[in-house]
Amino acid sequence: MSRVAFLGPPGTFTEEAMLTQPDLAAAELVELRSMPDVLAATQDGEVDLGFVALENSIEGTVNVSLDSLVFEHDVLIQREVVLGISLNLMAPSGVRLSDVKRVVSFGPATAQCRGWLAHNLPSAQLVAANSTAEAAQVVGEGGVPEAAAVGNALAAKLYGLEILAGDIEDHPENSTRFVLVAADGIPPPTGHDKTSIVCFQAADRPGSLHAILGQFTARDINLTKLESRPTKKGLGDYCFIIDLDGHVDDEPVADCLRDLHVALPRLKFLGSYPAAGDHGPTRRRDAEQAWRTADDWIASLRRKMDRPKMDGD
Amino acid sequence: MSRVAFLGPPGTFTEEAMLTQPDLAAAELVELRSMPDVLAATQDGEVDLGFVALENSIEGTVNVSLDSLVFEHDVLIQREVVLGISLNLMAPSGVRLSDVKRVVSFGPATAQCRGWLAHNLPSAQLVAANSTAEAAQVVGEGGVPEAAAVGNALAAKLYGLEILAGDIEDHPENSTRFVLVAADGIPPPTGHDKTSIVCFQAADRPGSLHAILGQFTARDINLTKLESRPTKKGLGDYCFIIDLDGHVDDEPVADCLRDLHVALPRLKFLGSYPAAGDHGPTRRRDAEQAWRTADDWIASLRRKMDRPKMDGD
Amino acid sequence: MSRVAFLGPPGTFTEEAMLTQPDLAAAELVELRSMPDVLAATQDGEVDLGFVALENSIEGTVNVSLDSLVFEHDVLIQREVVLGISLNLMAPSGVRLSDVKRVVSFGPATAQCRGWLAHNLPSAQLVAANSTAEAAQVVGEGGVPEAAAVGNALAAKLYGLEILAGDIEDHPENSTRFVLVAADGIPPPTGHDKTSIVCFQAADRPGSLHAILGQFTARDINLTKLESRPTKKGLGDYCFIIDLDGHVDDEPVADCLRDLHVALPRLKFLGSYPAAGDHGPTRRRDAEQAWRTADDWIASLRRKMDRPKMDGD
Amino acid sequence: MSRVAFLGPPGTFTEEAMLTQPDLAAAELVELRSMPDVLAATQDGEVDLGFVALENSIEGTVNVSLDSLVFEHDVLIQREVVLGISLNLMAPSGVRLSDVKRVVSFGPATAQCRGWLAHNLPSAQLVAANSTAEAAQVVGEGGVPEAAAVGNALAAKLYGLEILAGDIEDHPENSTRFVLVAADGIPPPTGHDKTSIVCFQAADRPGSLHAILGQFTARDINLTKLESRPTKKGLGDYCFIIDLDGHVDDEPVADCLRDLHVALPRLKFLGSYPAAGDHGPTRRRDAEQAWRTADDWIASLRRKMDRPKMDGD
Repeated sequence: MSRVAFLGPPGTFTEEAMLTQPDLAAAELVELRSMPDVLAATQDGEVDLGFVALENSIEGTVNVSLDSLVFEHDVLIQREVVLGISLNLMAPSGVRLSDVKRVVSFGPATAQCRGWLAHNLPSAQLVAANSTAEAAQVVGEGGVPEAAAVGNALAAKLYGLEILAGDIEDHPENSTRFVLVAADGIPPPTGHDKTSIVCFQAADRPGSLHAILGQFTARDINLTKLESRPTKKGLGDYCFIIDLDGHVDDEPVADCLRDLHVALPRLKFLGSYPAAGDHGPTRRRDAEQAWRTADDWIASLRRKMDRPKMDGD
Repeated sequence: MSRVAFLGPPGTFTEEAMLTQPDLAAAELVELRSMPDVLAATQDGEVDLGFVALENSIEGTVNVSLDSLVFEHDVLIQREVVLGISLNLMAPSGVRLSDVKRVVSFGPATAQCRGWLAHNLPSAQLVAANSTAEAAQVVGEGGVPEAAAVGNALAAKLYGLEILAGDIEDHPENSTRFVLVAADGIPPPTGHDKTSIVCFQAADRPGSLHAILGQFTARDINLTKLESRPTKKGLGDYCFIIDLDGHVDDEPVADCLRDLHVALPRLKFLGSYPAAGDHGPTRRRDAEQAWRTADDWIASLRRKMDRPKMDGD
Repeated sequence: MSRVAFLGPPGTFTEEAMLTQPDLAAAELVELRSMPDVLAATQDGEVDLGFVALENSIEGTVNVSLDSLVFEHDVLIQREVVLGISLNLMAPSGVRLSDVKRVVSFGPATAQCRGWLAHNLPSAQLVAANSTAEAAQVVGEGGVPEAAAVGNALAAKLYGLEILAGDIEDHPENSTRFVLVAADGIPPPTGHDKTSIVCFQAADRPGSLHAILGQFTARDINLTKLESRPTKKGLGDYCFIIDLDGHVDDEPVADCLRDLHVALPRLKFLGSYPAAGDHGPTRRRDAEQAWRTADDWIASLRRKMDRPKMDGD
Repeated sequence: MSRVAFLGPPGTFTEEAMLTQPDLAAAELVELRSMPDVLAATQDGEVDLGFVALENSIEGTVNVSLDSLVFEHDVLIQREVVLGISLNLMAPSGVRLSDVKRVVSFGPATAQCRGWLAHNLPSAQLVAANSTAEAAQVVGEGGVPEAAAVGNALAAKLYGLEILAGDIEDHPENSTRFVLVAADGIPPPTGHDKTSIVCFQAADRPGSLHAILGQFTARDINLTKLESRPTKKGLGDYCFIIDLDGHVDDEPVADCLRDLHVALPRLKFLGSYPAAGDHGPTRRRDAEQAWRTADDWIASLRRKMDRPKMDGD
C-alpha cells in the first residue's frame, strides 16, 4: 500500500481534496506538520507521494509550498486536484449563532469570510489557529469558551461540531489547486495534460520575459499560469513559474522546452501531469500529426544532403 | 495631522516598516484588524492613507491585500517601502532556550524559521497567533506557559521580551514590500518611479500575454513584477498584475498604457510612485528627450498635411 | 496648370497609368529620361509632381526608383496608382505573325512573355529597347525589319501599330504599382490610406527586425509590404522599406512612428497617402475613437498628479 | 565534366562571377538566353548546374530570377557568389571620350552610371542592349557608330574594346549576389552556411509576419534578407523570401523550419549552402552543443515517463 504525506491535522481542505481521489483515499495517509516537510519526506523516499496546496489556497501559506517546490526540493508533479472551497461556521451541538463570542480559525480562512463575519458577528473576537482543522478541534474540545470555528464539513464531522451557517465565504466561486508529487516519474500523456516549469532569467532586462513567452506563442502553446517570483536573493532577481497546456511527450512542448533550455541559464522541470477538470475533445492528436508531417519533411530534406564519406562531421 | 491606517496590533513588521518613514512616524496611526479594512477605510476617507504588505510577506496572507487592491477597492499607490525581514526568538526575561516548550507565532513566520526550529527546538509545540505582534503580546502577558514568540525587535520592546536568538529565519535575505495607498492622487515623478497596473485579458488564448508584453518590450520598458491571478470567477479566467519602471507622466509609459487601454477589455491603474531603494543616475531624462524629439518630428510631419478648409474631416 | 514629370517616351505603362487619373491627364506632362531624373526634378521644384513605378514593374528597373526614393531624394508620396499590365504583340499594318523574325522590347517585358514567345515565335531574335514605348516607336518607324514590338495598346495607337496578339504575358494577373510624388505636403486622411517608411536598423543582429515589427503588431497595424534592402554600403547593412495601412494623422500610426523614431538610428518618412483600389467600410473611425477614449483616460490620470508648484518640470 | 548553364552572351557579370569559381571555370559552360531558361534547364536535367543573379544586380531583371526560383521551378541552391561590380566605358581602339555620341548598354547598367554620364557625356544618346555583354559585342562589331559600351573588363577583352574610363558607377560599393543551383541535393554544412526559404502566409492579417519572425528570434537565428513579394495573384497576397544564417543540418534551424512548416499553409525550401565571403570563427559548434545538451535533457525527462505496457499510445 502506498504512503501519502499531507499537511495535518486531519480535517483540512487538503485532506478533503485528497479524499476525492479513490486511490489516495485507499492509501496510508501520513500527517506531517508543514508543507515543506511533506515535500522533503517525498523527495527522501520516506513516503511514496506528497499532497500539497499550490494556488489561491485558504489552507496555509501557499507561497511556502511553491517556494519549496521551486527552490528547495526536487519532486515531480503527478496530478492536480482542484477543489471548490466551502467555509462553514461550526460549533458544538446546542450553540446558537447569538451565543458566539469568539471565532477560531486559520487567518486566511477568517479573512475570506470577513464580509459575513462583519455582518453577522461584528463584535466577535478572532482567535488564531494553525489550520481550519485545528480550529475545529480546539472548539470541539472546548478549548476556547463561547466559540465557533470556521472550517469545512469534514472537520465538523471529525470533531463533533454542527454547522451553524454554511457557505459563508465572501467569494463562493473560490477554488484551491492541489498537486500530488513523487520523487520521480512522469505520468503518460492523456490528451489533456499540463506541464509546469520554472524559467530562471538571464538578467533583469527589458524583453527577456517577452522572449521567453515568444517560445510559447510561436508554437501556439497556451499558458494557464505565469508568476514572477524573487529568487530568494532579494527583491531584484526573478524567476518565472509557468504552467502550460501539454505534455513533455508532445513534440511541440518538447521543442519548446529544448529551446528554452538552450536560451536560459537554468530551467527547472516540475512535471507533466493530467490536468484537473472535465475536458472537451482533445486537440493533441491533430497537433502531433502536424508536427510529424513537418518532421518527415525535415528528414526528407536531410536525406538530400551529400554527407561526407569519411569523417564523422 | 494626517491619519494612517495599518494592520494591527502594534509591533508587526508592517508597523516597523511604516516607522522607517519620518512623515508616517509623525502621523496619527490607526490600527485596524485586517488588510481589506485598511484599504476600505482609505477608499472611504475614514483615514488619509493606508499602509499594507504586498509581496513575499511574512506578515499575513499577502494575497488578501493584493486581491483587495485588484478586485475590490479603488485606491492609488503613493509609495513603496521595502523592509529586510529579521525574525527573532523572544521570551520574557530569565527564560532560557532550554526552557522553551512552545513557540507562538503567526504561521508564515514560523514556517520561515522551520530549519532553525527543527534544529534547536525539535520537540516544541507550535501555537498559532494572528500576527507576530500578537504572539509577542501573548507571550509577554504570560498567556501561554513556557513559551517563546517569533517576531521582530519592535514587538520585543513593546511587550517586554528579550531576544533569545536573532536572525533565525532560514532565508536571511528575505524582504517584504509594503505600499502606502490613498483614495486618489499621483505623486509627481522623481526619475526613479514604478507604475503598477492590472491587465484583464480578452480571452484565455495562446499569445495574448505575449502581445501585452510586446507593448513593454517595444518601448524598452522594464518589468519588475508580473503575476497572473484568477479573477475570482474560478481558476480559468486570468488577469495580470504588472509592475514596471517609469511614471505615467513619462511619455513612453503613457503611450504604452494608452495602447493597452485600446487593446484590452479592462485595464486598472494602481498608481505611479517613487520606487524604494537607492538609485543610480536616472535614465528618465534621456528617454524623455528622445521621446520629445520624436514627438516634434511627428508634429513637423503633420504640419505638412493639407488640412481640408471647409469640412470637419 | 501643374507640371508632372514622368519617364518617357510617351506610350509607356507609366503614361498609361498616369492617364487613368483625370487631374494628371489634364496637367502639363514633362517627359524625362530616367526615374531618378523624375525624382530629382520633383525635389528641386522643376516640376510640381513626379510619377514613377515602384513595384513588380515591367517598366524599367524598379529597384532604381526605390533606391532613389530611399537613399537619394527627399520627396513625399501623394497617391498610389495600381495598373493591371496587359502586353501585346504589335506590328505595322499588314504584318502577320508568321512574318515576324524579330521581337523588339524592353527586357523585362519580353521576359514576362517568355512562354508565349517560345511557343509562337520560337526562332525570333530578341532586340533590346530602352522601354516598351521605344520598342513600339522603333517598329513603327521601320527601324528594325520584319519586327514586332511587345508593349501596350497606348503605344500601338501612338506609333501606328496593330495588335497581332493581345494579353500575351505569362501571368495575366500581373499589376504594377506607381506613385505620385511631390517635394513636400501630405494629403489629408481619407479613411483608407497607406504610410510608407524606411527603418534603418541599429545593427545586423538577431531580433532587431522582430522588435521593429513588434511595434506594428502591438498596435494592430497591418503591413502591406516589407523589404530588406542593402544600404548601398555593401551587402551586409540593411534597411527595411515598409508600407502600412493608416495615416500619420491616425494616432496609433503616429504613436508607432514616434516609438520607432526613438528606437532606431534613422527613420525616413516617405509619405501618407490614399491607398489604391476599392475599399470596404473603413475601420479608421473605430480605431480613432478607441484611441481617443484611451487618451482621455491618460489625461484624467495625469490630472490626479500633484504637480510641483514652482518649477516647470 | 559537369555542364553549367548561365545567361549569355559571354562577357556578362554573370560569367565573370562564375569564372571566379575554379570548378565552374573548368566545367562545360552552356549559354542560354534568359534566367528562367537556366532554371528550367537545371530542373529538367539538361544541365547539371545553373548560375543566376539574385540580388541587387545590374545584370538583368533579378525579380525574374527570384520569381522563377520561388514560383515556377524546383531547384536547390548549392552555393552563393558575391561579386563587386565595376562598370567601365569601353570603345574600340582609337576612340576618345570626346568622340562618343552614343552609349550602348543594358538599361540597369546605364542607370547605375547616370551621374558619371550626365557629367561627362551629357548629350550622348542612350542605346539599349539586352545585356552589358551584348552592348560590348555590338560596339566591338561596329553595329552602332560613334558609340561606347558600358560593361565589364571581361567583355572588353572578349570583344576587342579598350577602357576609356573605369569604375564609372555612381555607387562603387555595389555588389551582386549570384547563386549556383542544382535539381537536387544539399551541400554538407561548413560552419558558415545560409538557408533560404519562402514563407507563404496564411492571411494578410496584422502580426502574421511578426509571428513568423518570432520563430527566428526565439532561436537567436540571424536573418540576412527578408522580402515580401506578391504571390502572382494580384498585389494583395504575399509571401516572404527569407535568408537566414545556418544549415538545415543544424538542429536549431531544423526546429525552426519544422515549426514554420506546422504553422504555415506552405513553406518552400530553396536550399542550405555555404555563405559567400570570409568568415570569422564559427559559432555553429557551440550552438550545436547547447542544442544537444538540451536534447539529452528532454530525453532524460522522457525516460522518466511510465509508458503504458500494452497499447501503442
